[in-house]
Amino acid sequence: MGGFFAGRTLADLGAALRAGTESASGLLERALESVDPSLNAFVTLDEEGAAVAARQADEELGSSADRGPLHGIPVAVKDIIDVAGLPTGMGSAHFAGHTAEHDAAVVTRLRTAGAVIVGKTGTHEFAYGGTGDVSADGPCRNPRDPSRMSGGSSSGSAVAVAAGTVPLAIGTDTGGSVRIPAAFCGITGFKPRFGAIPTGGVFPLARSFDHVGVLAGTPADCRTAYRVLADLPPGLSEPREPFEPPEPFEPRPEPGGSVAWIEPQEIDPDVERAVAGTVRAVFPDAASVKVDLKELRRVFAAIQDSEAYEVHAERVADAPELFQRPTLERLERAGRTPGWRYVRAERERAEIRREVEVLLRRHDLLVLPTMPITAPPIGTTGSDLGPLTPLLISLTCAWNVLGLPAISVPAGTVGGLPVAAQLVTRPGAEDLLFAAAERLRSAPR
Amino acid sequence: MGGFFAGRTLADLGAALRAGTESASGLLERALESVDPSLNAFVTLDEEGAAVAARQADEELGSSADRGPLHGIPVAVKDIIDVAGLPTGMGSAHFAGHTAEHDAAVVTRLRTAGAVIVGKTGTHEFAYGGTGDVSADGPCRNPRDPSRMSGGSSSGSAVAVAAGTVPLAIGTDTGGSVRIPAAFCGITGFKPRFGAIPTGGVFPLARSFDHVGVLAGTPADCRTAYRVLADLPPGLSEPREPFEPPEPFEPRPEPGGSVAWIEPQEIDPDVERAVAGTVRAVFPDAASVKVDLKELRRVFAAIQDSEAYEVHAERVADAPELFQRPTLERLERAGRTPGWRYVRAERERAEIRREVEVLLRRHDLLVLPTMPITAPPIGTTGSDLGPLTPLLISLTCAWNVLGLPAISVPAGTVGGLPVAAQLVTRPGAEDLLFAAAERLRSAPR
Repeated sequence: MGGFFAGRTLADLGAALRAGTESASGLLERALESVDPSLNAFVTLDEEGAAVAARQADEELGSSADRGPLHGIPVAVKDIIDVAGLPTGMGSAHFAGHTAEHDAAVVTRLRTAGAVIVGKTGTHEFAYGGTGDVSADGPCRNPRDPSRMSGGSSSGSAVAVAAGTVPLAIGTDTGGSVRIPAAFCGITGFKPRFGAIPTGGVFPLARSFDHVGVLAGTPADCRTAYRVLADLPPGLSEPREPFEPPEPFEPRPEPGGSVAWIEPQEIDPDVERAVAGTVRAVFPDAASVKVDLKELRRVFAAIQDSEAYEVHAERVADAPELFQRPTLERLERAGRTPGWRYVRAERERAEIRREVEVLLRRHDLLVLPTMPITAPPIGTTGSDLGPLTPLLISLTCAWNVLGLPAISVPAGTVGGLPVAAQLVTRPGAEDLLFAAAERLRSAPR
Repeated sequence: MGGFFAGRTLADLGAALRAGTESASGLLERALESVDPSLNAFVTLDEEGAAVAARQADEELGSSADRGPLHGIPVAVKDIIDVAGLPTGMGSAHFAGHTAEHDAAVVTRLRTAGAVIVGKTGTHEFAYGGTGDVSADGPCRNPRDPSRMSGGSSSGSAVAVAAGTVPLAIGTDTGGSVRIPAAFCGITGFKPRFGAIPTGGVFPLARSFDHVGVLAGTPADCRTAYRVLADLPPGLSEPREPFEPPEPFEPRPEPGGSVAWIEPQEIDPDVERAVAGTVRAVFPDAASVKVDLKELRRVFAAIQDSEAYEVHAERVADAPELFQRPTLERLERAGRTPGWRYVRAERERAEIRREVEVLLRRHDLLVLPTMPITAPPIGTTGSDLGPLTPLLISLTCAWNVLGLPAISVPAGTVGGLPVAAQLVTRPGAEDLLFAAAERLRSAPR
């Protein structure tokens, strides 16, 4: 937790870069000094390429060619996202030695915004899992307790931010892969609405659910990065410099309020108590609502199984031995899901979407824990609540099925490990979500 | 072939109704007299309801409340389409005694247009097959040779028109189910672009591919019905009365022309010779192009399998004995198709769509035979070219996969049985297609 960027926001850094008290090259040096190899966050560091980008940022900032709030900021990118000239390893032996030819769309946007890409971060193999300890590159370790999982699949991105190595990292989220490691590592992770940040050049996991997201120390920093990287409606798409935090969010005074707490169904009671306590302190009038998260997880699984196997069918047939064993076993099961289950799940998804749209007309924000447990020890495959694979996504995957904006924000600790609240909203109400997340993060506990 | 309506067009009938030389009630009487029970086209006749509708049409036409070209016209409706108060039997014991509560959307449009619904026509069980001889209601018989199949699944609708019992019938087409029986029975069948005629109140077979279509004696009559029943762009949606045939269609003079012949891959050579001869006589400059119809049929099968089984999963589990045996066997196979094949097929479909869109920018019309064989004897399950189930849809299902307008029009005979040409076009060019189909129909041979 001792990295240079711990506790430093993009607004602070942006101000310092423009006041001349910091330089992009200096920030890059701090980032590289802050890398803790024992945590295994990075699979590739691009010291040369980053130095060139940092020097260019310093020149531009010196000549007032200001590219906005990411200009000169060191950023880490998950290793399933192509950065031209660097390896994209996917955490898999299948892609050993593979180098990307082109930048992914989100990387192009980072470069256009003047960000300095420090390197590539470890991923659960092919982003197909939430633990972060199944990878050809070895497990990522949780900075809060290195014997424990980081969570995944954007494991290294969360670890790099939580360790203070970078102030911002890019991840992907198909069933929770940005929010899970953010929650386990005690930072903020935001998955925008489906399609908001383009997925071109990102290796697919399940195309219906794949989102690009951002990880940072605070909701405000996630908002800043999101506004730079996403396709926003005209008038909102101009990055503002320096970043202005949104007005404090106040739930509407009507009975029931505009915040609703979703009761989680299977959860460690200590985790529920901690998160609910924080939420209740900030939103004392929050209504209580039910969403059938188990049904949504079934829908998620049926669709993800078929889409994920479709991506890997030829690899499973031709070189099964190159997969990590848990990945192969999961794929083989997924490949046997019958097609009519996929079709049925798509119909159920459409029905549930209509129900949740009604809920989101009554409530601006839905709140629930991000994770039902704290980070388990590395190598664990189950908990008191059952096998980890379905458990880890049990509160997050619903919002991939529905394509809704969702953020995970720290909301206390249990046994010294971070727990997190998750906020969900309708597309267009992201600023409410960021503001409410800031209030949760800074709540007294 | 002796029914009253054989050789009578909607334009003729419309003119006679308005001249007072025919009445709607009289036309209904002719229709009922023309029913040939030995052909088994109808499963329900609604003499009472039709008589009320015919009297109303006569009153309205007498008072100049003209509803357009279907006003007072007797129409038959396939028995998977709901007509309120009448049984919808689906050709299946599963729906024995089932009565529809509401009109399907297309039936509402028929009534609004003043059509007189004579009754419901036999269907291949659940529209899941192209022979027309697998049904709880028994086989429909081909008016051209009653020992032979009508084709299906809109079996009774084709037979009712071919036998001259009605001038117009409504069918559905998921892989060819309007065009197949139209071709085998020697009439015209048109499947519009996907979604043009609403499917509300139509029992699904495979939702990605389900189309409502029309069967009539001529392309011009199909066009008339289509323009009344479809959602058309503003300015085209007003039914014109009396019907004006479009200007004769002239292919463009450029090299290669704007008509392209698709070489069929597996076809009875006599059928190919007959159809190609007619096409060559009318479009001597037609280019020759290749479309991978086998690949399209594989894509069709993977998607249809999963969508069809999803519709019937509970029936297969709860009451398999109520299915006709060939239907049950087909469903059981379909239910085993893995989901990743569905996902892969959807991706391939998107790729092929882009290729064919390029083809349809170079050529206004694609022409090929509708059927690779003539109507086989009832009860047959194979031919020299292989099993009938895949063979019957081998030239038609591509246009369901791509959602393109397609028409089948008589193009000669082989061994005394009808053969047909199929024309395909891009959405928006339907009038070219109808005009070209009229030229093929009236070509000397």
